[in-house]
Amino acid sequence: MAKTIDSLPVDNGYRMPGEFEPHKGCWMLWPERPDNWRLGGKAAQKTWVNVATQISKFEPVTVGINHQQYANARAMLPEHIRVVEISNNDCWMRDNGPTFVINAKGNVRLVDWGFNAWGGLKEGLYFPWDLCSAVAQKVGEIEGIDRYKAPFILEGGSIHVDGDGTLITTEECLLNQNRNPDLSKDEIESYLKNYLNVEKIIWIDKGVYQDETDGHIDNICCYIRPGVVALTWTDDKTDPQYDISVDAYERLSNSVDARGRKLSVHKIHQPNPIIITKEESSFVDSVDGTIPRNTGDRMAASYINFYIANNGIVMPLFDDPFDQIALKALEELFPNREVVGVNAREIILGGGNIHCITQQQPAG
Amino acid sequence: MAKTIDSLPVDNGYRMPGEFEPHKGCWMLWPERPDNWRLGGKAAQKTWVNVATQISKFEPVTVGINHQQYANARAMLPEHIRVVEISNNDCWMRDNGPTFVINAKGNVRLVDWGFNAWGGLKEGLYFPWDLCSAVAQKVGEIEGIDRYKAPFILEGGSIHVDGDGTLITTEECLLNQNRNPDLSKDEIESYLKNYLNVEKIIWIDKGVYQDETDGHIDNICCYIRPGVVALTWTDDKTDPQYDISVDAYERLSNSVDARGRKLSVHKIHQPNPIIITKEESSFVDSVDGTIPRNTGDRMAASYINFYIANNGIVMPLFDDPFDQIALKALEELFPNREVVGVNAREIILGGGNIHCITQQQPAG
Repeated sequence: MAKTIDSLPVDNGYRMPGEFEPHKGCWMLWPERPDNWRLGGKAAQKTWVNVATQISKFEPVTVGINHQQYANARAMLPEHIRVVEISNNDCWMRDNGPTFVINAKGNVRLVDWGFNAWGGLKEGLYFPWDLCSAVAQKVGEIEGIDRYKAPFILEGGSIHVDGDGTLITTEECLLNQNRNPDLSKDEIESYLKNYLNVEKIIWIDKGVYQDETDGHIDNICCYIRPGVVALTWTDDKTDPQYDISVDAYERLSNSVDARGRKLSVHKIHQPNPIIITKEESSFVDSVDGTIPRNTGDRMAASYINFYIANNGIVMPLFDDPFDQIALKALEELFPNREVVGVNAREIILGGGNIHCITQQQPAG
Repeated sequence: MAKTIDSLPVDNGYRMPGEFEPHKGCWMLWPERPDNWRLGGKAAQKTWVNVATQISKFEPVTVGINHQQYANARAMLPEHIRVVEISNNDCWMRDNGPTFVINAKGNVRLVDWGFNAWGGLKEGLYFPWDLCSAVAQKVGEIEGIDRYKAPFILEGGSIHVDGDGTLITTEECLLNQNRNPDLSKDEIESYLKNYLNVEKIIWIDKGVYQDETDGHIDNICCYIRPGVVALTWTDDKTDPQYDISVDAYERLSNSVDARGRKLSVHKIHQPNPIIITKEESSFVDSVDGTIPRNTGDRMAASYINFYIANNGIVMPLFDDPFDQIALKALEELFPNREVVGVNAREIILGGGNIHCITQQQPAG
């Protein structure tokens, strides 16, 4: 049912739509690995149920599960959420899942990127990642969606598009030697243009301080709509995030997109630093080759890492004074969407946030 | 998306259609367990590809795979056949899969039977069977089809229906103490009537000689259309199958179905006895608790174990002089369907045949 297409999306008239365009639904995976998620994933799983349940109020949700957790996930998730087997090494559907592309007729295909667990054998976050590498293809098989297999390492969280010719990303990630070391910046731009059908790439320098993905764009900056982006921010000049956000603000504010628009940049103040407690680090298996979770480490918390659903926004909250400020800011930026928050502490403890664990499938 | 329905198909107006009614497609699983399939399943897998490919000429085919075999199965199967993860302990979709039911509006639901590996801890064919028990539910989740969970052990291969009120089965299987020992024959009939919406059950005594399923109906007798059945046969009075087939012929010929029709019974002569060779038994892992495959054992070969597809029949062949006689007989019985044969020796070596490894999903 699902073919592998031996040509390029740009040549076939397929483009990656903006996340704010209409969705058929949302894909997620399920946390369980005990060397990344404390308490064997039990705490994170409750948060996953909350995220999936909130998104499912706006659009259909499918959750892919390793078979050992199938019965438990099926029992924990509401009945109207679809649960299917999709084996994976960890649960970051944004990064190991497909990037969907559409054409003018509304036909949908997907791009199946190379995946090396955010950095490969030396700097990757775990080993092996063979199951993650097959997630995109399996989504396509279930849905009967043809795929492009891109000979290029990329995680979905490292790019954002406006659906209208422009992509934003970070040099820290896409130019990192641990992703595609043999490709020049120009060659990387060519891949992005060919597979996502964009004309202009806007580069910022770095992602959020301490972000273990090597600075994914989706934790620091995202599109609200074409010409309008949101950026994580801090007023605390002593915070290492300050210089990063200032630099990003300047680059973005001075950028012109593929349609000649100057970008409007909205600052969303980050939460106060979130530190792993002793209790939180105590119940994570220690496995050589998996990134450790150490007491006292600061997590890369940001409100930017939200999911745009049909008529809704599902955003992370951290039980922090800045929560309500961020929520109101998103309500103003998305006047036609209902903004709901989910406490996301258990997600950031594993190294990501709501956007990282979701992947929108555009409406056909 | 898929709900569990807490009522009975018969009360909701759902019935099991005959296999000869229109299909949306066909479900299969994938052989791999080395204690049942010789050569780690490699020989059987080639036959599976042949069966799936032939069926796919008539209707869409989905094959469910344990994740370890996903890449290999995807590579071996033609691209137009859908491949999804459905973990299983063995690959008999007829028996561990769902039984689909439809209503007058064309809505489709499924019945998820209890499963105990054809006989439970004492007489079952392997242990454990936990993954098989979840296959029906997982099919329903993928398709978004609501299910009835029947508190009753039953394999799909142990029943055939005409879709018009009548079911045929064997006493050897359904009344076996290793299935539902606490239920009387009347109670078992009630379950069949409630979950499949039939009014009349026609019982024959036994299934095919040496059939390890405890005599599944689908290896000895099947519906061609309402009022017409085919029966495996032998003219060799010294063959233990002879008395079994004569008894079945008499019972069937003297039966009246739910609509008052006398059954017309067509004999299909079986192949000559098929014996496991030393080579065939030599490359099967020996595992305590799994039925052994011994040199010299006779397999339960029958031409009745075919699959009825949309406009087609996919039937087993055995490289036997009776092959062409059976093929011509089926061509006469199904004048509007193309009959194609697949050499099925590798399937019977594992204990079943083409009907056992398939499950039709009716058109909605």
